Amino acid sequence: MKKISKKLNAAIIIIGNEILSGRTQDTNVATISNWLNKLGIKLDEVRVIPDVEKVIVSTVNQVKNKFKYVFTTGGIGPTHDDITSKSISKAFGVKYCYHPVAYKILENYYEKGKFNAGRRKMAKMPKHSSLILNPSSGAPGFIIKNVFCLPGVPSILKSMLGGLNNRIIGGRKIISQTLSIKTVESEIAVQLAKVQSKYKNVEIGSYPFFKQGKLGVSLVMRSDNLKLISKCKKEIIKFIKKKKIKIILNK
Amino acid sequence: MKKISKKLNAAIIIIGNEILSGRTQDTNVATISNWLNKLGIKLDEVRVIPDVEKVIVSTVNQVKNKFKYVFTTGGIGPTHDDITSKSISKAFGVKYCYHPVAYKILENYYEKGKFNAGRRKMAKMPKHSSLILNPSSGAPGFIIKNVFCLPGVPSILKSMLGGLNNRIIGGRKIISQTLSIKTVESEIAVQLAKVQSKYKNVEIGSYPFFKQGKLGVSLVMRSDNLKLISKCKKEIIKFIKKKKIKIILNK
Repeated sequence: MKKISKKLNAAIIIIGNEILSGRTQDTNVATISNWLNKLGIKLDEVRVIPDVEKVIVSTVNQVKNKFKYVFTTGGIGPTHDDITSKSISKAFGVKYCYHPVAYKILENYYEKGKFNAGRRKMAKMPKHSSLILNPSSGAPGFIIKNVFCLPGVPSILKSMLGGLNNRIIGGRKIISQTLSIKTVESEIAVQLAKVQSKYKNVEIGSYPFFKQGKLGVSLVMRSDNLKLISKCKKEIIKFIKKKKIKIILNK
Repeated sequence: MKKISKKLNAAIIIIGNEILSGRTQDTNVATISNWLNKLGIKLDEVRVIPDVEKVIVSTVNQVKNKFKYVFTTGGIGPTHDDITSKSISKAFGVKYCYHPVAYKILENYYEKGKFNAGRRKMAKMPKHSSLILNPSSGAPGFIIKNVFCLPGVPSILKSMLGGLNNRIIGGRKIISQTLSIKTVESEIAVQLAKVQSKYKNVEIGSYPFFKQGKLGVSLVMRSDNLKLISKCKKEIIKFIKKKKIKIILNK
């Protein structure tokens, strides 16, 4: 995993007071992360920040230099609190202006006479951005250098990701396998640590669960190397069997 | 809102590969944020980071100096991937060692002879931390300076927050009211911006929704001043009525 994370990694910046206030439950992180897994890109950081220009500018500037790809969500709509496009122009020190193609798309999208100031604002973005087409609701996202700006509405964001596949240079797909067992973490911690130290290129996560009266631990193995995952899993199963711990799920 | 955010603010650091990989949907942000709202503390940033010591150390060091309160979730269990306590000791440059009271709590919690290495690890934390008691599963969290370390399992985290109320110096409760209307954002963007510029101490968020075939916009007003929210809402209702837009919800 370390080899992957050095270069083919990504960060997400969630821009939105509604997530910070607890009003809205974010689901875009999981959506983008699962899509990135398939492309062989590892999500290494997420930041959730408010709709405040100086915070957006400084966060984008910090993050864009640290990660190969940066995705922002939210703040590209028509209202006063939608300040992502303007702030990202500032972060890159480029002009915030109408994108001619975005302008045309939106002009055609609305009925004649209905292309008002709020709607025109959605065609404004950092100069020389390239567009991310929006099959759901017209207003495009945009790409500037390694920063991909997407909307916050989950259904619209989802519909736009597919169109980005050919814009991302990915790596080997990150594979994940799960072994759920009937025990508590502290019963297996020592042996599990030994297996982890042997398989440094498999990331083993241990997650306790209490669901529907059932208590157990899910062991999640992640790597871009299926053979290594299989070997690692075998070793875990070996010590689990010795301890007479029941396997609930193996997939 | 600006007066509040200058001092009585907070950040959350979610420590966990399982959130970044998209396997697990975080819900702790909303839980902590809603609890903070009642205490008059504004959540200003969230970071999600992997179980990697140097990342935890540098993130904690950046964030603890920027915000009044910092909450971490995850990584305080018994397994190899639980490295929060050790990393936070490093961030503060203090010894990582057994907390005598935590040790006693855990020793009593487990049957005789069952207090193994993994379980003893949960009693290790930064020297001179104070404990956050855990009514669900024994293992305590801890506080060092302005950093509060909580577990990642949502049900356990929830059960521990109540005991923290008297450790937080809060402000005036942050009130939130919502006006949901049958329109699209771009129909109201210009007038809404005018109201926002008049009421700088009310944070107005505009969130489009498409639920069960219904299309609309939720306008969320947040402030510690109820009178200001009421005045602001009245002005919004005034321009909405002029435009003959239907109100779906007002609460």
